[in-house]
Amino acid sequence: MLLNELSAADAARRIAARSLTSEALVEACLERIARRDGEVHAWAYLDRERALAEARLRDREPARGPLHGIPFGIKDIIDTGGMPTEYNSPIYRGRQPKGDAACVALLRRAGCVILGKTVTTEFATNHPSQTRNPHNAAHTPGGSSSGSAAAVADRMVPLALGTQTGGSVIRPGAYCGAAACKPSFGSINRAGLKFVAESLDTIGVFGRSAEDLALALNVLTGRGLAEPVAATSRPRIGLCRTPRWRDADGETQANLERAARQLAAAGAQVSDFELPSGSQDLFDRHAVVMGYELARALAWEHAMFPEQISTSLMPRIEAGWRVTRTEYDEVREIARACRRRLAERSREVDFLLTPSAPGAAPASLASTGDPVFNRAWTLLGVPCVTLPFGSAASGLPLGAQLVGAFDEDMRLLAWAHWAERELAAR
Amino acid sequence: MLLNELSAADAARRIAARSLTSEALVEACLERIARRDGEVHAWAYLDRERALAEARLRDREPARGPLHGIPFGIKDIIDTGGMPTEYNSPIYRGRQPKGDAACVALLRRAGCVILGKTVTTEFATNHPSQTRNPHNAAHTPGGSSSGSAAAVADRMVPLALGTQTGGSVIRPGAYCGAAACKPSFGSINRAGLKFVAESLDTIGVFGRSAEDLALALNVLTGRGLAEPVAATSRPRIGLCRTPRWRDADGETQANLERAARQLAAAGAQVSDFELPSGSQDLFDRHAVVMGYELARALAWEHAMFPEQISTSLMPRIEAGWRVTRTEYDEVREIARACRRRLAERSREVDFLLTPSAPGAAPASLASTGDPVFNRAWTLLGVPCVTLPFGSAASGLPLGAQLVGAFDEDMRLLAWAHWAERELAAR
Repeated sequence: MLLNELSAADAARRIAARSLTSEALVEACLERIARRDGEVHAWAYLDRERALAEARLRDREPARGPLHGIPFGIKDIIDTGGMPTEYNSPIYRGRQPKGDAACVALLRRAGCVILGKTVTTEFATNHPSQTRNPHNAAHTPGGSSSGSAAAVADRMVPLALGTQTGGSVIRPGAYCGAAACKPSFGSINRAGLKFVAESLDTIGVFGRSAEDLALALNVLTGRGLAEPVAATSRPRIGLCRTPRWRDADGETQANLERAARQLAAAGAQVSDFELPSGSQDLFDRHAVVMGYELARALAWEHAMFPEQISTSLMPRIEAGWRVTRTEYDEVREIARACRRRLAERSREVDFLLTPSAPGAAPASLASTGDPVFNRAWTLLGVPCVTLPFGSAASGLPLGAQLVGAFDEDMRLLAWAHWAERELAAR
Repeated sequence: MLLNELSAADAARRIAARSLTSEALVEACLERIARRDGEVHAWAYLDRERALAEARLRDREPARGPLHGIPFGIKDIIDTGGMPTEYNSPIYRGRQPKGDAACVALLRRAGCVILGKTVTTEFATNHPSQTRNPHNAAHTPGGSSSGSAAAVADRMVPLALGTQTGGSVIRPGAYCGAAACKPSFGSINRAGLKFVAESLDTIGVFGRSAEDLALALNVLTGRGLAEPVAATSRPRIGLCRTPRWRDADGETQANLERAARQLAAAGAQVSDFELPSGSQDLFDRHAVVMGYELARALAWEHAMFPEQISTSLMPRIEAGWRVTRTEYDEVREIARACRRRLAERSREVDFLLTPSAPGAAPASLASTGDPVFNRAWTLLGVPCVTLPFGSAASGLPLGAQLVGAFDEDMRLLAWAHWAERELAAR
């Protein structure tokens, strides 16, 4: 196995055992990027010399944390000191923030090495970026964390940060065949993040495995790793088709039901799970909340540089200005009520199993795909994990999404680790 | 009455009637600042020429909103395009953000004129700023929105934006004798605000009267003005002494009880209101949430420029790093439970009456005073208004705080308008 293909957990174990240096790992990643990024376009900015210099520093000191010396990609919507942060908008070309966002500072503090900035779609919204799906360059990688998903899936870097406001972590993770986690709202500090919709924007992580994601969340949230799930355990899984099941294509429906059967064969008690009343609204009216906040968050850009805003984003901003405060407050109130109801219902199951996306990555670069199976969970603030599972007839990866109870991120990742093993074994 | 002494509502009415120009109003404010700011030190930055030029532009166009042509001060923790934003930290001296924060862009969109930046304490925390209390320069103006409170109270500007994480809007408002409102969490979009503690930071407004605050919130939140309260109405007021009543000095206790008696004489049904169980914790453990988030929000500054962080802030950051995630999550969970309980109890009353601060502004420039009567409300996310009422033996102003139900900001301001009139009448 090439060094750039190591999972973060394996690489960290080797670094801790002094059988691998951070420098060699960073070099392997940089070589992979040099070889592949001309096709994938996952990176907005790289500072090879700084990354290597920092890796050498990390190699000379005692471990600061469980991911000491591990390279990270940072979505270019998150501030980084000494590296530009441009939000993939011409308005911000050449912008150099003074310092690191809180999440980046936390990674550095724990000994991680920031490799560079991964491509975001424009302001982390829907206008397609230059990034291609690493499995097939004619397909979208999804968005808005396009670069982070593609870079991790293409073995350019073991871990990367993304953000999700609608479906921007879970969907590109599934499309590219990476594991990814959007933790609970409030899990990872957002100071230094450019806001799209502040009541929704959630920082998340892409990695090779549930174990990698758990290590990253341990560093980023300070929460301890959950006890591993015993091989003999019989989780209660809620199979949640959601009110939008018909939006999933046949492959996705069959694939998710196959995942449920495999987990049942591994000992799980699988039952159908219907979301609490009112949840339908969250699927239908997420755009009310996102649009209202988006228009305000980008009010300055919209007023000053309308001609530098893409033709995808402009109508969304304009729609956002048309949302009334009453309508916005109403959907927020529905979301709060649904959060309470779902929290009560969450005791019935250990986790939910639900589609990550309506299908594999579409054969198009004109759209980043549909976040229909992500938006309601973002609005509910609950933790979500996508695991690569199965593949489409096109050869592109499919995924399965696990959803946990609010603030139980680490418990969900322990179940995801169990599910990943059982899904691979059968 | 000098033009700079007009309330925003009165000035806006005159501008709408074409009996006053925005230019004349801005000029009067600038003259007052030129005369007084050498003593008060409320302003971190002023752009006289730009403000006058914008006022002239506003005078030539139709009204964009209910505060068309009204000047505003912006706390220097909020980004402004074309004006520096330095957070009162040497680390950020000379920092020029590219664009306006969402709240500033909303003000401009509504025709307001940004006069300049008001002094914040360092990163909107507790290290005293250069600002003095306009009533007595030996007394603190409070913090962290020191400049906004002092500028509005000293008639330098009719309205100004502040932020509250502990007690940074209501306390300086009361100390300086300004009306002020910390709206519900989520009312005013925070894109472009430098975060101290993202789950607490709330943008608020200083003004001359409840009516001024309501107009500002109308512009900033898009919520309609509430129906005025009829003179014959008999509000149900909960007199909430809080678990920390003994921290209030005798003058403050007597003053609040006098306010309650006056409002009862005006027809209100006043009854004692005890906060729901668990709330004691919010008074005692706000620092757990604020400290945890503060350390992370300023992780980069702390790692790179420790010598440029004040001796007041440094121990708070260090204390924040010592808070465990478990403790932090526990207090957040208590706060969520208390929010639900308070929302149920809120139906019993129209608003709560409670101290704005434990006393008048202390005769000291070494501290910004004690946010003991503010922190729990910030953590609860409910709207708070302070109205000037009474004065201390020292001659400094006292205040009374009104607290409403979550998201009922406009209703609370209608009650505050009623209370202001009844308190002044008797």
